[in-house]
Amino acid sequence: MKNRVITISREFGSGGRLIGQKLAEKLGVPMYDKTILDRIAEENGFSREMMEEAEKKALHGFLYSLSSAFGTGETGPESLSLNERFFLAQFDTIREVAEEGSCVIVGRCADYILRGYPEVTNVFLYAEEEDKIKRAVEEYGVPEKDVKKIMHNTDKARANYYNYHTGRKWGDPVNYNLCIDTGYIGIDDIVDLILFYVEREIER
Amino acid sequence: MKNRVITISREFGSGGRLIGQKLAEKLGVPMYDKTILDRIAEENGFSREMMEEAEKKALHGFLYSLSSAFGTGETGPESLSLNERFFLAQFDTIREVAEEGSCVIVGRCADYILRGYPEVTNVFLYAEEEDKIKRAVEEYGVPEKDVKKIMHNTDKARANYYNYHTGRKWGDPVNYNLCIDTGYIGIDDIVDLILFYVEREIER
Repeated sequence: MKNRVITISREFGSGGRLIGQKLAEKLGVPMYDKTILDRIAEENGFSREMMEEAEKKALHGFLYSLSSAFGTGETGPESLSLNERFFLAQFDTIREVAEEGSCVIVGRCADYILRGYPEVTNVFLYAEEEDKIKRAVEEYGVPEKDVKKIMHNTDKARANYYNYHTGRKWGDPVNYNLCIDTGYIGIDDIVDLILFYVEREIER
Repeated sequence: MKNRVITISREFGSGGRLIGQKLAEKLGVPMYDKTILDRIAEENGFSREMMEEAEKKALHGFLYSLSSAFGTGETGPESLSLNERFFLAQFDTIREVAEEGSCVIVGRCADYILRGYPEVTNVFLYAEEEDKIKRAVEEYGVPEKDVKKIMHNTDKARANYYNYHTGRKWGDPVNYNLCIDTGYIGIDDIVDLILFYVEREIER
């Protein structure tokens, strides 16, 4: 198969990370998700804690946009806010890994960062609320009493972060080649469905 | 294969009708789209012209909602507005055809009307603007100078009609099992991709 990069965006509880892992295994290529933070940290001198802190802030959309918009008051690259510098560093690292060869990238606005790359296929995974709750409790081990709140907050932070940095709308089909409700077919079949699409893509 | 109903919702220029036709041919089942209007007309004594007029009004969302909300001033089923009576008649006919056996239904809010039917798979087809324009001009024969306006108005009317009658948002992935950008793989491969999904659906 030609060089392929598959990006996976996903709602909390849709099984997106596991699907990304299985897809990468089946293709024999690396899978990047939060693990890419280590590489960003190493290459840019950020601490892992600082980066996770920057992402957590996205839950509070307006405060996040404020803390992203205002830099240090100086001029030059150092004048950018920490959030902006982190996002730009992530931008560079994601382009680097995509150029290194085939891979699967879960989350991290990769669909936007790699827009215009002809070898990229963008997938969005979602499911009905009751299916996501079931998976989060049974497979991720999230306590039942907290699951709705955690699910809501995680997706809200993902949407705020994506919408702020990309000017697009997270989960809008137009950003993806394929959107799949993961509640109606098995995980391995979803992996095969994505591969079916990828293998048939037309050269454009 | 077990009894299957596949509903196709689609943006203008995405090739949805042709995909629905090919899907129905491959499955050897009937395909319903605007043709269902004849059956609704026959069973309910509406004229075809009146029904098409009611749908055209949807382009003007607010006026459509007004003309749908106000009945004749009388009580009983006759007091419903013409738009509402037509939608309810369509409701009955779509449930009838779904209960008659496997079929493909293009448009007509069928995903909403058949919600809760376990044998139904809902598909949304879309594409990037330049791909839709190319298809509309080359395949549907729409004059190039009018294509953007026709595309915009058709999708606006579809969205208004759907959103008004269902309380949902047209094109929101949560309403569909599968959403496919039809600009990146061939029509026959899209038919096979939908069948791949349908054949693997879990009994729920």
